[in-house]
Amino acid sequence: MESEPYELIYWPMLQGRGEFPRLLLEDAGAAYVDVARLPEADGGGVPRVVAVREGREPGPRHYAPPVLRAGDLSIAQTGVICSFLGERLGLVPDDEASRLRAQQLMLTVLDVVDEAHDTHHPVSSSLFFEEQRDEAIAATRAFVSVRLPGWLDYFESVVVDTGGGLVGPDVSYPDLGLFQLVEGLRFALPKAMAAHCDRAPEVLNLAARIAARPRIAAYLASPRRIPFNEHGIFRYYPELDVVPD
Amino acid sequence: MESEPYELIYWPMLQGRGEFPRLLLEDAGAAYVDVARLPEADGGGVPRVVAVREGREPGPRHYAPPVLRAGDLSIAQTGVICSFLGERLGLVPDDEASRLRAQQLMLTVLDVVDEAHDTHHPVSSSLFFEEQRDEAIAATRAFVSVRLPGWLDYFESVVVDTGGGLVGPDVSYPDLGLFQLVEGLRFALPKAMAAHCDRAPEVLNLAARIAARPRIAAYLASPRRIPFNEHGIFRYYPELDVVPD
Repeated sequence: MESEPYELIYWPMLQGRGEFPRLLLEDAGAAYVDVARLPEADGGGVPRVVAVREGREPGPRHYAPPVLRAGDLSIAQTGVICSFLGERLGLVPDDEASRLRAQQLMLTVLDVVDEAHDTHHPVSSSLFFEEQRDEAIAATRAFVSVRLPGWLDYFESVVVDTGGGLVGPDVSYPDLGLFQLVEGLRFALPKAMAAHCDRAPEVLNLAARIAARPRIAAYLASPRRIPFNEHGIFRYYPELDVVPD
Repeated sequence: MESEPYELIYWPMLQGRGEFPRLLLEDAGAAYVDVARLPEADGGGVPRVVAVREGREPGPRHYAPPVLRAGDLSIAQTGVICSFLGERLGLVPDDEASRLRAQQLMLTVLDVVDEAHDTHHPVSSSLFFEEQRDEAIAATRAFVSVRLPGWLDYFESVVVDTGGGLVGPDVSYPDLGLFQLVEGLRFALPKAMAAHCDRAPEVLNLAARIAARPRIAAYLASPRRIPFNEHGIFRYYPELDVVPD
């Protein structure tokens, strides 16, 4: 394929939104370079990501990483990167209805990712957590009590409808996104996820099947998988680890 | 085309996210039915939108409106609906790079839409504004002082690069989204938008060119255009109409 190896450009110290395309590349066994994890002397490191933000990366101007380079294409926006890769890498059926459905469900997963991020940064992503701790506690309580069960119920009903993954009976790329969402929520909000586990058994089964896919299992056990930490989207703060109302 | 007339299903009392596909349909002069604005007796009204939320609409299950029905297809997620319509209605060049670029920029516009919404609902969309007024004031101050100028600078640089619209020299569907974003921000945050107007002259020129397109101008002057109000994404609250720091 003319576009391999793919180049992924994302902050090297956290999973963040870069983890969604990374999981697709790993699951497909695609050749890719995780550019910013190379040494700065080889064109990697944080300066390479900053170059995206400052419009110094070749190609069209992007607002934020992750960026995927595939041959002459330079693509940003996690949802677009994932649908582009998912369709190229065979991680979605080829018919129009399935492709549109996968795009839609990937964006729905990413909507929950945004809401999960905003639990610890409800006032602004331009302020520190410590500047909005009280608001974060209120936001997290609302998220785990109202929003999260609504999302889990939705995904559960979709998976029950298909009898397999989000899009159909076979695994497709939004399932990899759902896996990452479940993993992140379990890390960030363990008490809430434990309280809700009975309402979405098929979602949790699907996440477990994704984790067991040979290439994903190998990836998760490798140093390429950056551990969850307090820089990413999913962060563990004891004061936010609350049980739902 | 086999899929016309399109059916758009969205809350009938507010512009909201439904306005983004609506602008595409209007600009292209496409035949469409704004389903929920029909009387309930004809299958319209709020109950039709609630049927989407409750999984009673035919076809795959959607989390939330807007929903577009096109022949056998039933599509949700504003960004996916807009790329689907934009490609079908000739509102984007046909090459892969342009289509991907348009998808990306549409999602970037919608990211700002989400942030603009969250200024008045920073703690949770499941609580009333009045329950989070103080947090909303803090969120709006951060938005207008840090986030909004960053977004405006980004869109300005993209439009300057192309010498036309967001994707290229000609108008494409993300430009219609940018127009709606600018209109909404001017309604909700007039002091901040006035303070920032010098930093994005080409963005404002582009928005003015969109408003002057004959079908858009006719639409905006028609009763089909729901006025901005305090139910939508863009809301005017005097206490949030602050000047940037």
